[in-house]
Amino acid sequence: MEFDLRETITMLERTPAVVRELLHGLPERWTVSNEGPDTFSPFDVVGHLIDGEETDWIPRIKIILAQGPDRRFVPFDRFRSQGAREDLAGRLDRFASLRKANLAVVRDLKLTPAQLTLTGEHPELGTVTLAQLLATWAVHDLTHLAQINRVMAKQYKAAIGPWVKYHPLLTR
Amino acid sequence: MEFDLRETITMLERTPAVVRELLHGLPERWTVSNEGPDTFSPFDVVGHLIDGEETDWIPRIKIILAQGPDRRFVPFDRFRSQGAREDLAGRLDRFASLRKANLAVVRDLKLTPAQLTLTGEHPELGTVTLAQLLATWAVHDLTHLAQINRVMAKQYKAAIGPWVKYHPLLTR
Repeated sequence: MEFDLRETITMLERTPAVVRELLHGLPERWTVSNEGPDTFSPFDVVGHLIDGEETDWIPRIKIILAQGPDRRFVPFDRFRSQGAREDLAGRLDRFASLRKANLAVVRDLKLTPAQLTLTGEHPELGTVTLAQLLATWAVHDLTHLAQINRVMAKQYKAAIGPWVKYHPLLTR
Repeated sequence: MEFDLRETITMLERTPAVVRELLHGLPERWTVSNEGPDTFSPFDVVGHLIDGEETDWIPRIKIILAQGPDRRFVPFDRFRSQGAREDLAGRLDRFASLRKANLAVVRDLKLTPAQLTLTGEHPELGTVTLAQLLATWAVHDLTHLAQINRVMAKQYKAAIGPWVKYHPLLTR
């Protein structure tokens, strides 16, 4: 499927409401349980999404658009939010307002097809285009939504008894 | 994690709004694309969730509670909705109203801990308890939500370019 800027923004807009609908007000055992050592709980995932809004997507868009001599991105610290003193309700609110503000920035850029082909340098992956960065922002949302659902489902692995056979996702 | 009836109902209640928030009004290329032959698109998943509401969960709960001489469940037809003449908006509405009605039925049963241990016979899996059936209902929602997110993310596999390396879900 070809990249489409408007559709990508539409999907990015929805994520905070999807995450909120999934998690708000749930008992903590559903939101802070993870898949084992060094894995994210749903609470951690929301922190990680916030980190992306604060440190990753917009700064990288700006590096590409500036087309300065050094277009190298700062590596994304995937564990930046760990240990932050914040509850889930606070994170859900903060993620929603950061995302809203960031999409306003993107809309105000009125990106042209030519700009979407401009490139930056990913510290590990090499040369990437602005269109690829924006598509990755949306894919990153979707895969972390899938992760939240999977992590929650796993908490009921014992509770579903023999049905675990039909849910291979729970043993992955 | 131990089964909890009230928490399970809370999660089941949210699914229609989560699915709606993810899919409503999206261009069709995002909702009818799948992962290849004989796989579900997001549109198909919503049809499958409707099938569960109409033919599976409540009838099985009733078979268990009746404790008649034959407690065998009817097999779940996973492809029943295929070919139905219906658009996505219609399916989202129908899923929401069916789920609401079915959870009203469950609440009205005022299930006791003793009833949750009653059993039925799954055609392939053998003896299962009412608690396991209810937990599976919620897990089935969560794994199909994860599927919707994964199927959508895969449509942008080419668009994200080198970032596919960080998203193994897209090549699974």
